[in-house]
Amino acid sequence: MAIIVQKYGGSSVADTEKIMAVARRIVHTVQQGHQVVAVVSAQGKTTDSLIAQARAISAHPPKREMDMLLATGEQVSIALLAMAINSLGQPVISLTGAQGGIMTDTQHTKARIRVVDGARINQELEKGQVVIVAGFQGVTSTNDITTLGRGGSDTTAVAVAAALGAEVCEIYTDVDGVYSADPRIVPEARKIGEVDYSEMLELASLGAMILQPRAVEVAAIYGVPIHVRSSFSENLGTTIKEVNVVEREIAVTGVASDENCAKITLVGIPNDVNVLYHIFSSLAVESINVDMIVQAGTTKNITDLTFTVTQEELEPTLNTIAKVQGEQDWQVICDENVAKVSIVGAGMMTNPGVAAGMFEALNNENIPVFVVSTSEIKVSCLVPRPDYQRAVRACHRKFGLDSAK
Amino acid sequence: MAIIVQKYGGSSVADTEKIMAVARRIVHTVQQGHQVVAVVSAQGKTTDSLIAQARAISAHPPKREMDMLLATGEQVSIALLAMAINSLGQPVISLTGAQGGIMTDTQHTKARIRVVDGARINQELEKGQVVIVAGFQGVTSTNDITTLGRGGSDTTAVAVAAALGAEVCEIYTDVDGVYSADPRIVPEARKIGEVDYSEMLELASLGAMILQPRAVEVAAIYGVPIHVRSSFSENLGTTIKEVNVVEREIAVTGVASDENCAKITLVGIPNDVNVLYHIFSSLAVESINVDMIVQAGTTKNITDLTFTVTQEELEPTLNTIAKVQGEQDWQVICDENVAKVSIVGAGMMTNPGVAAGMFEALNNENIPVFVVSTSEIKVSCLVPRPDYQRAVRACHRKFGLDSAK
Repeated sequence: MAIIVQKYGGSSVADTEKIMAVARRIVHTVQQGHQVVAVVSAQGKTTDSLIAQARAISAHPPKREMDMLLATGEQVSIALLAMAINSLGQPVISLTGAQGGIMTDTQHTKARIRVVDGARINQELEKGQVVIVAGFQGVTSTNDITTLGRGGSDTTAVAVAAALGAEVCEIYTDVDGVYSADPRIVPEARKIGEVDYSEMLELASLGAMILQPRAVEVAAIYGVPIHVRSSFSENLGTTIKEVNVVEREIAVTGVASDENCAKITLVGIPNDVNVLYHIFSSLAVESINVDMIVQAGTTKNITDLTFTVTQEELEPTLNTIAKVQGEQDWQVICDENVAKVSIVGAGMMTNPGVAAGMFEALNNENIPVFVVSTSEIKVSCLVPRPDYQRAVRACHRKFGLDSAK
Repeated sequence: MAIIVQKYGGSSVADTEKIMAVARRIVHTVQQGHQVVAVVSAQGKTTDSLIAQARAISAHPPKREMDMLLATGEQVSIALLAMAINSLGQPVISLTGAQGGIMTDTQHTKARIRVVDGARINQELEKGQVVIVAGFQGVTSTNDITTLGRGGSDTTAVAVAAALGAEVCEIYTDVDGVYSADPRIVPEARKIGEVDYSEMLELASLGAMILQPRAVEVAAIYGVPIHVRSSFSENLGTTIKEVNVVEREIAVTGVASDENCAKITLVGIPNDVNVLYHIFSSLAVESINVDMIVQAGTTKNITDLTFTVTQEELEPTLNTIAKVQGEQDWQVICDENVAKVSIVGAGMMTNPGVAAGMFEALNNENIPVFVVSTSEIKVSCLVPRPDYQRAVRACHRKFGLDSAK
């Protein structure tokens, strides 16, 4: 009898009717002969409302107490879902993160799972019960409640699946899988049946709303297959697993895009790695994530440096740069009117000329490229924001993704 | 440095402003040189709203899952209160019932505290922290969350005070103490300064909204003084402790009353203890609490039996009686238009004629008495409901309680 871990997000348990639908799906899975562990998030906007309550009391509440507060959100969900499943006649038990053996480090509000002690979950499964585990939360070795931060419930589900040796970790969401491009931009985008862990990570901008990168990383380490599928249908979704690259015929799996970019160019900085070090370490201290970095190759003493950050981080970035710059004679140019378009595919490694194909597609559309960066399975181009949707469509067409599989 | 346990009910933490007021009071107590442990209930109507959510899913949710759900109410309160105290610069930590070492039996939704393991609380106090403990909840030996049922938070506070050897357990509420009668009935009623545990139990109908009898019982066993006082003032309230009865000059401490009564008389039942056994064991099986029981002494084979129950339990009581009666030829008479008036006082034991004084007072007012029952420190009379407030005032006056102390 295989163990299946199912994860249901906050929108899937937002009200009584939706909770009953999830309960029926779980019971249906049991009736098909599986043991089911369900990992559940807080209902709908519960977490936001709890955060608002905390902010009304203190601008900087202690993180341990935030976790104490936020953890109640999932505790409500698991209890209600257990009641719903019980009302269908199926034995069931709910477990908090602590009870479910989700052991974390002590970084409150962004704890990382150290180990999942599956003893209690296994014991309850052996009694023939469905086990409902609170996502997003865990407990430290001193019995203090932690939360895992953004994407925590996905990570809980994958970690539990790994600990139990589950056959699959199903992530139920409001979309029916991962698409070759954002269907709002490319109506011809198609659902990807299978995708490699590394591709999924690179497709983050397509998949982030569906599946958190942290969860994909854990799944890759433990080899847990993830099946992203819709809460509202029985259709198969997208399976994320280790895909044998040698067999790949398709060079490009999908086209990702990200509007949330700002480009910063430092003109006339010293051509000195020490300067680079100072700039990027100062940004790291401020917890600013730098995405693309390009330095024009030159033999001169003076060079230009371009990099991108999210728009929210533009202002703190400029402040930090100003401090590093001090009295030095640089020019700082920034451009918020840009977007990033990426082609992703594990098959790219064995298919030469993929980057060239992308440039050709953009060139045919007269779309300029400001910055290029590449990895083994991805080519990203920074383009003018007004052009980026056209760029996505051009790339999608160019690599044959429009055609039915 | 003395440990003081303070308990704040749901209305004391109902909103941000009230939570800040509680926080200031706690910090003020610390500044006076005490170590403080605060036991807190769920905010205002939180518990009712959680129960409504559960009922929307299932008419009979599993009790374990009800506890999982309801325990979130106090968890929210303790986190918010800890944030408020922290914002005043006072080190603080919140603990769930489980973290606070509140070990209970496994009777979900009405668990009883078996033992309080004060190790974690003591450890946090030693660090100079205020400790906030979730009331109303505990944990079984198998790490399952329980709730204590009605009056649970008071009981948590007293049990924690007992385990820590606290100097006093302060119960903060929206009234400023226990009065010699309900001030809405007797405007001349005065606040009682000190009252014995046993008197407090008998005064339940005055004190139940203030302090649950379960908590008083635990306090009596461990000799924990309870100070019932107002959240809204610095005035002293009423202290419940062991009062040396020998020194008592006042026979009657207070006059209690209870409108929620229904009287049932079984006319013409066999004068046989076996019949009594059958009737009251059948009621006990249905969890019906019988209050006053009077059987008219008679030597005949046939007798009458009168007893009282709450009005909510009248219908199930009549159904149960009908089953026990079967084909037997009894007459069942019930009267809902009654109320119970009681005089309570530990001094009664050493003051003869107290019951006679009560009858005199009622007789002077032409109030008939249907049923009388007595204990060592209480005399209760069932009177017509339209007359009961007059009866309370007459007794209050008769025993000199109207005068200022």
